[in-house]
Amino acid sequence: MATRKPHPLSAVSFTQVSLHDAFWAPRQRVNRKITLPIEYQQCRKTGRIDAFKLEWKPGLPNEPHIFWDSDVGKWIEAAAYSLMTHPDKKLEARIDGVAALMARAQQPDGYLNAHFTVVEPEKRWANLSEWHELYCAGHLMEGAVAYYEATGKRAMLDVMCRYADLICKVFGRGPGQKRGYCGHEEVELALVKLYRATGAKRYLSQAKYFIDERGQAPNYFKLEAEALQKKGWKKLGWVGSDYSYCQAHRPVREQGQVVGHAVRAMYLYCGMADVATETGDATLRPALKRLWNHLTHRRLYVTGGIGSTRHNEGFTFDYDLPNETAYCETCASVGLVFWAHRMLQLTGDGEVADILERTLYNGALSGVSLDGKRFFYANPLAVYPAACTGAQAHVAAERQEWFGCACCPPNIARLIASVGQYFYSQSEKAAWIHLYAQGDAALRVAGQTVRLRTDTRYPWDGEIRMRLAMPNPARFTLALRIPAWCPEASLAVNHTPWRVQSARGYTKISRRWESGDVVNLRLSMPVLQVEAHPKVRGNCGRVALQRGPLVYCVEQVDNGRELRDLTLPAAARFRPAFVKSLLGGVTVLRGRAFRRHPREWRGGRLYRMAPTRRQAVPITAVPYCVWGNRAPGQEMLVWMNKEPDQGARSDIRACKANERKGRE
Amino acid sequence: MATRKPHPLSAVSFTQVSLHDAFWAPRQRVNRKITLPIEYQQCRKTGRIDAFKLEWKPGLPNEPHIFWDSDVGKWIEAAAYSLMTHPDKKLEARIDGVAALMARAQQPDGYLNAHFTVVEPEKRWANLSEWHELYCAGHLMEGAVAYYEATGKRAMLDVMCRYADLICKVFGRGPGQKRGYCGHEEVELALVKLYRATGAKRYLSQAKYFIDERGQAPNYFKLEAEALQKKGWKKLGWVGSDYSYCQAHRPVREQGQVVGHAVRAMYLYCGMADVATETGDATLRPALKRLWNHLTHRRLYVTGGIGSTRHNEGFTFDYDLPNETAYCETCASVGLVFWAHRMLQLTGDGEVADILERTLYNGALSGVSLDGKRFFYANPLAVYPAACTGAQAHVAAERQEWFGCACCPPNIARLIASVGQYFYSQSEKAAWIHLYAQGDAALRVAGQTVRLRTDTRYPWDGEIRMRLAMPNPARFTLALRIPAWCPEASLAVNHTPWRVQSARGYTKISRRWESGDVVNLRLSMPVLQVEAHPKVRGNCGRVALQRGPLVYCVEQVDNGRELRDLTLPAAARFRPAFVKSLLGGVTVLRGRAFRRHPREWRGGRLYRMAPTRRQAVPITAVPYCVWGNRAPGQEMLVWMNKEPDQGARSDIRACKANERKGRE
Repeated sequence: MATRKPHPLSAVSFTQVSLHDAFWAPRQRVNRKITLPIEYQQCRKTGRIDAFKLEWKPGLPNEPHIFWDSDVGKWIEAAAYSLMTHPDKKLEARIDGVAALMARAQQPDGYLNAHFTVVEPEKRWANLSEWHELYCAGHLMEGAVAYYEATGKRAMLDVMCRYADLICKVFGRGPGQKRGYCGHEEVELALVKLYRATGAKRYLSQAKYFIDERGQAPNYFKLEAEALQKKGWKKLGWVGSDYSYCQAHRPVREQGQVVGHAVRAMYLYCGMADVATETGDATLRPALKRLWNHLTHRRLYVTGGIGSTRHNEGFTFDYDLPNETAYCETCASVGLVFWAHRMLQLTGDGEVADILERTLYNGALSGVSLDGKRFFYANPLAVYPAACTGAQAHVAAERQEWFGCACCPPNIARLIASVGQYFYSQSEKAAWIHLYAQGDAALRVAGQTVRLRTDTRYPWDGEIRMRLAMPNPARFTLALRIPAWCPEASLAVNHTPWRVQSARGYTKISRRWESGDVVNLRLSMPVLQVEAHPKVRGNCGRVALQRGPLVYCVEQVDNGRELRDLTLPAAARFRPAFVKSLLGGVTVLRGRAFRRHPREWRGGRLYRMAPTRRQAVPITAVPYCVWGNRAPGQEMLVWMNKEPDQGARSDIRACKANERKGRE
Repeated sequence: MATRKPHPLSAVSFTQVSLHDAFWAPRQRVNRKITLPIEYQQCRKTGRIDAFKLEWKPGLPNEPHIFWDSDVGKWIEAAAYSLMTHPDKKLEARIDGVAALMARAQQPDGYLNAHFTVVEPEKRWANLSEWHELYCAGHLMEGAVAYYEATGKRAMLDVMCRYADLICKVFGRGPGQKRGYCGHEEVELALVKLYRATGAKRYLSQAKYFIDERGQAPNYFKLEAEALQKKGWKKLGWVGSDYSYCQAHRPVREQGQVVGHAVRAMYLYCGMADVATETGDATLRPALKRLWNHLTHRRLYVTGGIGSTRHNEGFTFDYDLPNETAYCETCASVGLVFWAHRMLQLTGDGEVADILERTLYNGALSGVSLDGKRFFYANPLAVYPAACTGAQAHVAAERQEWFGCACCPPNIARLIASVGQYFYSQSEKAAWIHLYAQGDAALRVAGQTVRLRTDTRYPWDGEIRMRLAMPNPARFTLALRIPAWCPEASLAVNHTPWRVQSARGYTKISRRWESGDVVNLRLSMPVLQVEAHPKVRGNCGRVALQRGPLVYCVEQVDNGRELRDLTLPAAARFRPAFVKSLLGGVTVLRGRAFRRHPREWRGGRLYRMAPTRRQAVPITAVPYCVWGNRAPGQEMLVWMNKEPDQGARSDIRACKANERKGRE
């Protein structure tokens, strides 16, 4: 990522964008009509909402869990986003109901937490490293801000401001204040949202305090652990003494490697970026860039998934990206989209948009089924159902209806409900188009509202037509992203060819625009056979298929069992074909591979001393984001064996010849 | 495995065999001079021997652990075997010292267990499923029997007979007896040894009882768990309610799949085979054959390692043989050698000898370093040092000096000390030669002692010369094993060619033999590129190198980092070369492979859209059994990527042509 002075990009609200495409629009409809009601019912059924009644007593069922409040907060946020584009009295009434419970649950001093009010009141703020109080507060704040923006109703916002005021009072460097911060980051970015919604600078300062204090010596979590031990209060042991698990091993400005729990890391980096943006604090940027480069050059799955092991639900070591045991939590990819979105405004760098797109269209979206009713917690890149047990029990071969730890379902819901915001940015002199989809946008550029109508079948093909409309002709720049996956792009303005000059991932058209102007962009979309770095040991000798922004996988339902035994020939070619009737309409990739003849393995032998004859078989690959929607609980594979290109063979012949010469 | 009436083979004692070869003789010397003294010192240092003084009290260090006695028992057994071939007063005195401690530690009723006498006396026999009392008893019995055979001294044997008598009294189906058996099998085979040494039939009957009772309904472990709960005594949770973990899920005669903890399984099957042999009970044989076939056709690593996960230290599901996370405990391969040895006497089947050889020369032997000072607990087939942590912490990238659970070091020591017994069998009318090595054997055949002198460089080449000597000429059969790895064998008797007719893995020469007769056997030893069944998903597209009985691996010290990125060409050939100066003198395999050009991965990119140029590099493979003896803590790999044979490519061209025809 370049280090030059960042562009002054501004994020847009998803309310400025409406998608009418065949890829996102159906997802948003299902999210609104199916997923949100289901998640509400789950929150009710499991007691997450009633927990705010504070009626739980020892012996009763549904003891409020320390992170339940966060699930409700995320659901409220997702529901509020849906209300902004699709008003719904019934849904609004539901949220008002929860708001009322929250108001009643709030303590006189402003404290609001179902678990620590009724289950362990004596332990309030006692174990910040593990007990998620500020994390829960953050998600409730995000929900309250979203609901306020959706409806103008202040009730929930006021409740959360009172709680935030208490947090400002309790935590800080002043006399009598706790010099702590949360083990699970989240409240930092939430306080910035609260500041933006209310204009109250103290919330921004509090967010900055949490960012600045994190990882300072003496380590707060160490002191806290000693205090807990004195009191004889047990720790869960998540953190232990390895503070990198929650990115508190050193001050954030000194951090250069993405470490620990992946979701926590993403939320921290979002908070850092927000504070950098709002305070103009330039000292955070170098760390953000180091962390970004480390993640994207060393620890990112090709799907945009992150987190290589269930052991810490997070990062392990450089290039350690196992496919079958991957964690790749849905929340972590959602969090990466959030962080990338912030980095994109800070840098205007197309490489950042490439990662945002990769993550959004693959590792995040795979977290929810097409019917919106089931969810993945982990999103591995290879699934072998029989292995999804014991040490790999964290990997489910099919999406689940709900989870005891239900962070992912509402997280993917709020992402989909607000996905429009990732497509554009605006600035005084430019309109930025990061992603492409059929639909309309209204961007604030050059002091007026520029309307942009996009016609395209993206992501299924790269033909994009954009029509501009605005009150008055004006001079500004249209910045169009040329994705890294695209080897060849062509452009026309009002049907006159225009040279594509991609700089840092964008080609810019600066001219005097007027209503009716038409821009045609053609992005070639070949089927790419992606290779991973040789140090990614699990992918050596393998390729992943990608076309446009979509990473593909092979499924058992199309290709039979034992997908790992498929090998692509050196000259493998794939034909894209759009199948309207399949998975809501997707482009599949058809080609051929080798497979060993099962006939040669009759008689129960486990090993053979001679090579097995192989047969050529047709194979079909589907987008990773829709895998597991037909015959759940079957095999899936992203990285397929591929034989080396012919060049290698000639190279080895040359090498032999040289050695012969040497002997003569 | 054939089901025909078993041959009446008899095992030989290793005292009938002396190996003077360059492969085993040095291992036995190091085992005697280095390993045994080290293990004694470790047992002292850690308190395992002093534990028998019964002086431990709460608060003191070195609290006797529930399985410590077994480590001492195995060390005594190994040391006794060494005494049989190499008398050593100092060593004998050491063992006498331990014997005296054991005698004093024995309780008036015969009970002998350091832990349950001083740490938890109230819990004697309370948790058979987890607390290893009978397992410890078994290893002490094996040690006592071996020491008695080595020295004729009865002291320790008498102690263990008194303990065995108590066990006979406590466990059984009679009134007032506990109807239990041990969660960790071992005492069954030990009681048979005690019976053979003493002639006391009650020990054989007790072994048979433990075998017969195992897994009967109602399940003893279930009742036991309920009783423990009533008493409020915690279980370790190893077994839980999955009794297949310790092969107690159903009666042994109804078992057909190898399941659960691998070492426990091997010891059980040994006990079953011993009882079948000694009692002539034919009802155990079908189960033994089903279990043998299931193990060798579905759950056996190419090295003879067993146990696919640390989760249960044992078996998972069919064809699940991951390389990097393999458990392959040294004890499990040692146990498999024990079981195969028993099955070989029962069946005379060369397939059994093939597995015995594979396991002995690879997965078992890798458990100890060439200098005899360090040990592997797990023997994975791929090691990537950075990954040996977290979820893979059970895999050590280098051998260790000792373990908290030190079952493996004395187990490999007793195997090496007595390895001669695996080379031959004898019967009234035949001398069986299963394995080949330079050395002398004295076999009881045709009523006299037939001396056999073998000259060979096996396992480094397949030229074998055998010279017979005997008091009187006699007619009998010489059964020579033709290994499954050998594609071509030739034979001569007194320099006259003799047709090789291999039936069930043996070629038999029946004639009138006399002193001075010479047999020349030539076994071709090509470098084999072994393939695993297509369902072994981790090995698809890969081969393992094998020459003779030895499986090979590539090490970082010879081939650089990132071994997983090596790909063998379709026409890969390997040249064997004996290197006297290397690893005590081994035959290495030299060939060529492809590697991706690191140059094409500059600039920190993690993925690229185009194929990487490859370079041909020379590679060197060494025997798996000696890996990690040069630069410990580095990468190692058994299964290497290999490009498909040319046949596959022509097949795919044909397939394309057909489709074109179809379209025309």
